Amino acid sequence: MAQRRQITGFSNPTVKFLRSLRDKKHRKAAGQFLAEGLRLLTDARECGHLPLILAMATGRDPHPLLDALEADVLAAGGEVLEMAPDLLSKITGKDNPQAVCGVFDEFDTSLAGINRSAAKIWLVAQALRDPGNLGTMLRTGDAVGAGGLILIDDCADPFSAEAVRASMGAVFTQKVVQARWEEFLPWLRSGPGQLVAASLRDAVDYRGAPYAAPCFLMVGNESRGLPEVYEAACDLRVTMPMKGRADSLNAAVAGAVLAYEALAHLDR
Amino acid sequence: MAQRRQITGFSNPTVKFLRSLRDKKHRKAAGQFLAEGLRLLTDARECGHLPLILAMATGRDPHPLLDALEADVLAAGGEVLEMAPDLLSKITGKDNPQAVCGVFDEFDTSLAGINRSAAKIWLVAQALRDPGNLGTMLRTGDAVGAGGLILIDDCADPFSAEAVRASMGAVFTQKVVQARWEEFLPWLRSGPGQLVAASLRDAVDYRGAPYAAPCFLMVGNESRGLPEVYEAACDLRVTMPMKGRADSLNAAVAGAVLAYEALAHLDR
Repeated sequence: MAQRRQITGFSNPTVKFLRSLRDKKHRKAAGQFLAEGLRLLTDARECGHLPLILAMATGRDPHPLLDALEADVLAAGGEVLEMAPDLLSKITGKDNPQAVCGVFDEFDTSLAGINRSAAKIWLVAQALRDPGNLGTMLRTGDAVGAGGLILIDDCADPFSAEAVRASMGAVFTQKVVQARWEEFLPWLRSGPGQLVAASLRDAVDYRGAPYAAPCFLMVGNESRGLPEVYEAACDLRVTMPMKGRADSLNAAVAGAVLAYEALAHLDR
Repeated sequence: MAQRRQITGFSNPTVKFLRSLRDKKHRKAAGQFLAEGLRLLTDARECGHLPLILAMATGRDPHPLLDALEADVLAAGGEVLEMAPDLLSKITGKDNPQAVCGVFDEFDTSLAGINRSAAKIWLVAQALRDPGNLGTMLRTGDAVGAGGLILIDDCADPFSAEAVRASMGAVFTQKVVQARWEEFLPWLRSGPGQLVAASLRDAVDYRGAPYAAPCFLMVGNESRGLPEVYEAACDLRVTMPMKGRADSLNAAVAGAVLAYEALAHLDR
């Protein structure tokens, strides 16, 4: 039932629920996540995703996009809550929260939910632990016109506040898939698709390599890189020049350099 | 005077001093910073940088690289401190600190301290606020063989624990410069150097643009990008394809995609 309410107490059950969504366990139990900030919520709205609950700080600056968002949420039967800024801080865990946040249903993250032919590029990350890197990869995926980000094995939660924030809204435009390697590889081999690893072993120069669509570009864990057997299962292993002391790039950076190179070739 | 000491109390003045270095104000006052972890400290040592103070947790796993580091620090007249892991946690502010950290003198960050002809590529960041992005740019600079990272206007502190960690040791191999735009531009124009902006305005495709060494690749603030007058002062404005909803990349990602493209051209 659509409604608009004032919330005044820290002990309000809705405040407690919203706050619980900062925690992965509670997100999984509820199947919902939080997104903060008018820009992110407007991106979501323009992509057809409305929050089930919209929480706004009293004393916020008025904004036509916020009015539009509020009207849409109410029209869709959602809840709009107004609360003091310090209550909103409790929810977001930040001293200076943005003046608005929303609760969304998590998306389907199954392999069955994606159409591999919908895009020339798909990003794949294995055991990526940093939610900021994960969000950055989603943002890069949006920029290169990728179909989405496939998370292999135990990755950071794509619905954590940090990943959602770093994605700059791309969590609402990119498909997100979570799968074990043992599911992913048979799925990949059941249709067209080139699997490319960013790798140091038995690899060719990433520049001008024979990328082919749909091209699945895979980067590994921040510390350990990709397991050797995963690399061996790839159709192509590519490497970037490393001119200095270090032998690797930040995972999100490696994925982006590779994705832009593949894009240049596949767009010809 | 070289020495090795056991530290037992939270109120020990050295512990208090080390802990104070987590704070920018105290780092600036002391002209010193903290780096954590055996890998980072070994990178530093191999680049000729030894910590003035080396702090190690009791009960740590023995390691020949740690023994070598300890011997070098003592030989150079530094201090080696042993303390309980919970004391080391107080210093690093992390529940699971790495078993070792070190205090280093901050480096000269003046424009006068760099030789522009020493490298084909220099990275430039304007008002970069995220220390993780800053460290990632240092790491990318190392990978592309850049000379260093020039920080324009109010950037995050390159000597913060987060920036040092994200640099993966590159803070010890890349020159770091801090300068106002009003100093930087005259310095740049006093010698050879092409200033390139990652930009959306009046820009050419970043791919195959006429990069020339020494090439200074500049990215702007995470939210606002580069000021228009800064872009206008550049010799070349380049842009990356943006196929999705968003109009920008993560700043460290934009810098890396640009740096690898410039590298490919300048290395021919």
